Amino acid sequence: MTHDIGRHLRVAAALMLALGLHAGSTAGARPVTVSDLLATARPQDWRRPDPDSTLYLELASGRVVIELAPRVAPQHVANIKALVRSHYFDGLAIVRVQDNYVVQWADPDHHRALPSGIGMAAELTAAPGADARFEALPDQDLYAREVGFLDGFPAGRDPHSHTVWLAHCYGMVGVGRDDPPESDGTEMYAVIGHAPRHLDRNVALVGRVLNGVELLSSLPRGSGEMGFYVPPEPVVPIVSMHVASDLPEAERTPLEVLRTDSPTFKAVLDQRRNRREGWFKYNPGHIELCNIPLPVRIIPATTH
Amino acid sequence: MTHDIGRHLRVAAALMLALGLHAGSTAGARPVTVSDLLATARPQDWRRPDPDSTLYLELASGRVVIELAPRVAPQHVANIKALVRSHYFDGLAIVRVQDNYVVQWADPDHHRALPSGIGMAAELTAAPGADARFEALPDQDLYAREVGFLDGFPAGRDPHSHTVWLAHCYGMVGVGRDDPPESDGTEMYAVIGHAPRHLDRNVALVGRVLNGVELLSSLPRGSGEMGFYVPPEPVVPIVSMHVASDLPEAERTPLEVLRTDSPTFKAVLDQRRNRREGWFKYNPGHIELCNIPLPVRIIPATTH
Repeated sequence: MTHDIGRHLRVAAALMLALGLHAGSTAGARPVTVSDLLATARPQDWRRPDPDSTLYLELASGRVVIELAPRVAPQHVANIKALVRSHYFDGLAIVRVQDNYVVQWADPDHHRALPSGIGMAAELTAAPGADARFEALPDQDLYAREVGFLDGFPAGRDPHSHTVWLAHCYGMVGVGRDDPPESDGTEMYAVIGHAPRHLDRNVALVGRVLNGVELLSSLPRGSGEMGFYVPPEPVVPIVSMHVASDLPEAERTPLEVLRTDSPTFKAVLDQRRNRREGWFKYNPGHIELCNIPLPVRIIPATTH
Repeated sequence: MTHDIGRHLRVAAALMLALGLHAGSTAGARPVTVSDLLATARPQDWRRPDPDSTLYLELASGRVVIELAPRVAPQHVANIKALVRSHYFDGLAIVRVQDNYVVQWADPDHHRALPSGIGMAAELTAAPGADARFEALPDQDLYAREVGFLDGFPAGRDPHSHTVWLAHCYGMVGVGRDDPPESDGTEMYAVIGHAPRHLDRNVALVGRVLNGVELLSSLPRGSGEMGFYVPPEPVVPIVSMHVASDLPEAERTPLEVLRTDSPTFKAVLDQRRNRREGWFKYNPGHIELCNIPLPVRIIPATTH
């Protein structure tokens, strides 16, 4: 693609495809794009998320696919799966859409019975063992001494205490809580705005949206304090939530996620740090954690 | 408010108001909130944006109020005002809504005639004189050696070259361009996602949304490449654009913006850097430029 903020975008893109070179390039060779890198990725650069750690949030408008992080927040993930399997969320609704912040779904009155085994947990940072799996990036950060990826999720790390935690980037999914640090997973939210990184280490993140985040981010904003919907604002019902592995294969959304430890992902990072397209006049040479693309693709029907 | 990501939020907020103290506070004194600070701001801490540098983008769903930055991007602002006054944008439509990125409006075919005097300009950084008006913050940044505010807009600065530029935070408004660095202002966009700071110094920013950004950010995403709407996707028409000063006073949106050089704004920044509410378990002690709230209020009818 010629540039990010384009004027004659569609025309230029068509030309680029036709000519095979970039209008702004001095060398005559078209700079490599993220699309190019993904098109030439090896099959093993992609992973299929574990269906037993994948949630489907079904809205009337479509399906939001969420990948859970069972090794990062094991107690919350166990709680959420038990809640989903007991149909706790089915028939509830989106209760809050705060612009540039979060979408939240829950039982606002806490009338629903919890399945047995749901306990409170304080998983504000990752469970033991995370430090060994942390993939560090060279890029600086304002909210963590070190940033990188943990099990495919954007994460921060304190090298002194060896503490690792997930980062509140766009599309990350967490669970609300009251003033005590514990939560049970009944109040779920997704980030739909500029990364509220001050929430890192303050609230348990449990996963991220892999597909369909726009079904949440394009919802009408609530007019109440902090974006809560106030009657008669339209209710956005949760048709159902499922653990993907509980559905027959044919009803699952076949996704693949680019491995953050793959050579292709490293090439994507390099491309994004050093934009070589002629459109770019200034190049920062590095990238902020929450600006890193995390490629996800629907697997063509012929290959799954 | 008790906390950002709340479980019993509305109940807790009501209690807080009733008890006048914060459930999580150990000292018994309720920590000061941004609402408290704004409620006690002096009248002179607020400013009324110049109606001659304020645009109204009228959609069927309501009005988006945009404050222009005439001292930062004088040529683009002059162009845009001339375009608006010639009704260039009236009857056009939103052409692109890319999730977590931008909303763009333009004449996709460039069929419309331009009023006389519209020239191309390369205002990728602020016009001369900006350095003297830059208000520096102590907070670090990944995309600029120094960050702060310029004429009330979030900005970056290079202290060596004394270059200053506006930053691509949520709600900022810019103008698209082709590969050459010049643009004329006919292609406008607003940021509706995580700050794409790699665009700083690459494309001219001309202002920011003061009110109604949610009318843009909640639009359905386009299904085309880079979020362009593709038929038969619903067209979101631009009913009209106006310069506020061209409308009678009674038809203007009476807004006030907190001055970034006011003591109240400094107190807001301090509150956001150091969250003292009991809900917060970890405190970063600083804030990222694009996470800083820029308070705007509708002036009550009795005071304007």
